[in-house]
Amino acid sequence: MPEVNYHHFSLTFHPNEVEQRFKDVRFVLVAGCSERVEAQAHYLAEKLFDGVKGVKYPLEQLTKSRSRFTLFKLGPCLLSNHGMGCASMSIALHELFLMCQKAKVINLITVLRFGTCGGIGVPAGTICITNRALDPLFQDFVELKICMKLVKRPCAIDMPTVATLDRLCKEHPNREELGDYQVSVGATIASNDFYEEQGRTNGAICEHTIEDKMRFLERARELGVINMEMECNHLAAMCHKLGVSFGILDVALTNRLSNDKVELSREQMLLFERRLFWLNLVFIRHKLFGGA
Amino acid sequence: MPEVNYHHFSLTFHPNEVEQRFKDVRFVLVAGCSERVEAQAHYLAEKLFDGVKGVKYPLEQLTKSRSRFTLFKLGPCLLSNHGMGCASMSIALHELFLMCQKAKVINLITVLRFGTCGGIGVPAGTICITNRALDPLFQDFVELKICMKLVKRPCAIDMPTVATLDRLCKEHPNREELGDYQVSVGATIASNDFYEEQGRTNGAICEHTIEDKMRFLERARELGVINMEMECNHLAAMCHKLGVSFGILDVALTNRLSNDKVELSREQMLLFERRLFWLNLVFIRHKLFGGA
Repeated sequence: MPEVNYHHFSLTFHPNEVEQRFKDVRFVLVAGCSERVEAQAHYLAEKLFDGVKGVKYPLEQLTKSRSRFTLFKLGPCLLSNHGMGCASMSIALHELFLMCQKAKVINLITVLRFGTCGGIGVPAGTICITNRALDPLFQDFVELKICMKLVKRPCAIDMPTVATLDRLCKEHPNREELGDYQVSVGATIASNDFYEEQGRTNGAICEHTIEDKMRFLERARELGVINMEMECNHLAAMCHKLGVSFGILDVALTNRLSNDKVELSREQMLLFERRLFWLNLVFIRHKLFGGA
Repeated sequence: MPEVNYHHFSLTFHPNEVEQRFKDVRFVLVAGCSERVEAQAHYLAEKLFDGVKGVKYPLEQLTKSRSRFTLFKLGPCLLSNHGMGCASMSIALHELFLMCQKAKVINLITVLRFGTCGGIGVPAGTICITNRALDPLFQDFVELKICMKLVKRPCAIDMPTVATLDRLCKEHPNREELGDYQVSVGATIASNDFYEEQGRTNGAICEHTIEDKMRFLERARELGVINMEMECNHLAAMCHKLGVSFGILDVALTNRLSNDKVELSREQMLLFERRLFWLNLVFIRHKLFGGA
């Protein structure tokens, strides 16, 4: 039997090794930056099995440091960065899902994407949980150009996971340790570009006005959009297609209705990021061990 | 005056500093991986001013190692990685172009993108120079969703730069040091996904057959397509819009008409990559100092 290769992770396994190594995977955590993923991995390693008798997993870094994507494993959790934008993310997800398919756990996993976003009508620091994934024309499907055909796929959301994330986020007894913050559940726009498709007027190319931007953002708010990032719609479409559970949680770095610029101190940034780490932790602990 | 910030490079400058630091920039070299960019930067630092009297520039790394994009400067050359896919690349280009606009050199620069690709009807190791940039439906424009409107932009190519690259590649007296290789000039397809949009049948989701893939690849070849990657069309559209000179050169890792799998030794891979480094070098030397 030939070796199994995951090209963009620079990972090669012997036949049967994939199943052996990944059969206990139940959670796949992904974020844009490798630094954020590494910080989340260390946070989980410290807290996930705290007080749980008889369970202790080492944090493994499966990839060498110079590959395109970094992969960590902590017992039932795989953690990986996916770069910026849907194209980059889809490469990471295809290969992570191939690992899960080979290990026969594809329908046992939950994917959690955690990232930063621009808020729409919510203050900086708000945890935004996605219940609809849209493109910048407010369409809830993605289009792929496959073998000379335009294929449309719906961005259907995993609503039970949304409800669980929302409840944990609002009701968990420890939430106050992360400061006073708001939780919003709503629609998220994924753009294919950070500047023009998000309506920013400070890119190298800008053919729209500040008035065009404000009309776009106000219309988005009317339609229930709470934030904007660059990956949610393709992530939703891929997970839905494969029957994979998933949740998308972002922390807003700014409220774009009042300010496009991110003006946060390093301490605020770390606190905001920690809210995501914490919510992933309580979700995974809830799924593994029950309770709040 | 406020400070000038390039968010995704984690770079902040004092007012006026951008022009001071970047006014001599004439070449912007971009590639997907930071490792490839770093290797190209060291190669150029060693060879660019070899034998040129009175010129000596240090290689500077302007970004700290943990930012999303890495930026190097070597005299008139800026070098940066752009990640995978058009969305990620457009963020890097917007911010690099903003630097060049601020430094008043935007219409003096040439952008060179160098990368790896799947060849269509050309053997592994072929240098592919793009003279048309298409999407997987063979369309030569890109669509952006800006402020609730669908904006179409042509992917017009900078043909003089194509001609120069082609001539240098074929006629340069030193070309034999890089082994016996073919140079092809033709159309390049940029996909928004590595697996499905490139017709691969080994992704986690695949609803097309091997026959569908071969029909797509054969039709592409009939239309003059020589290779496939993930960035050329948006790069062409952005450069064309801003009146920026540019060239797109890729080395084929496989001929997809016979084999989807990349089966190269590390030595072959390094040799193939060096062909790109070398072609960038001879192009820049030609523009700066004349001659072949």
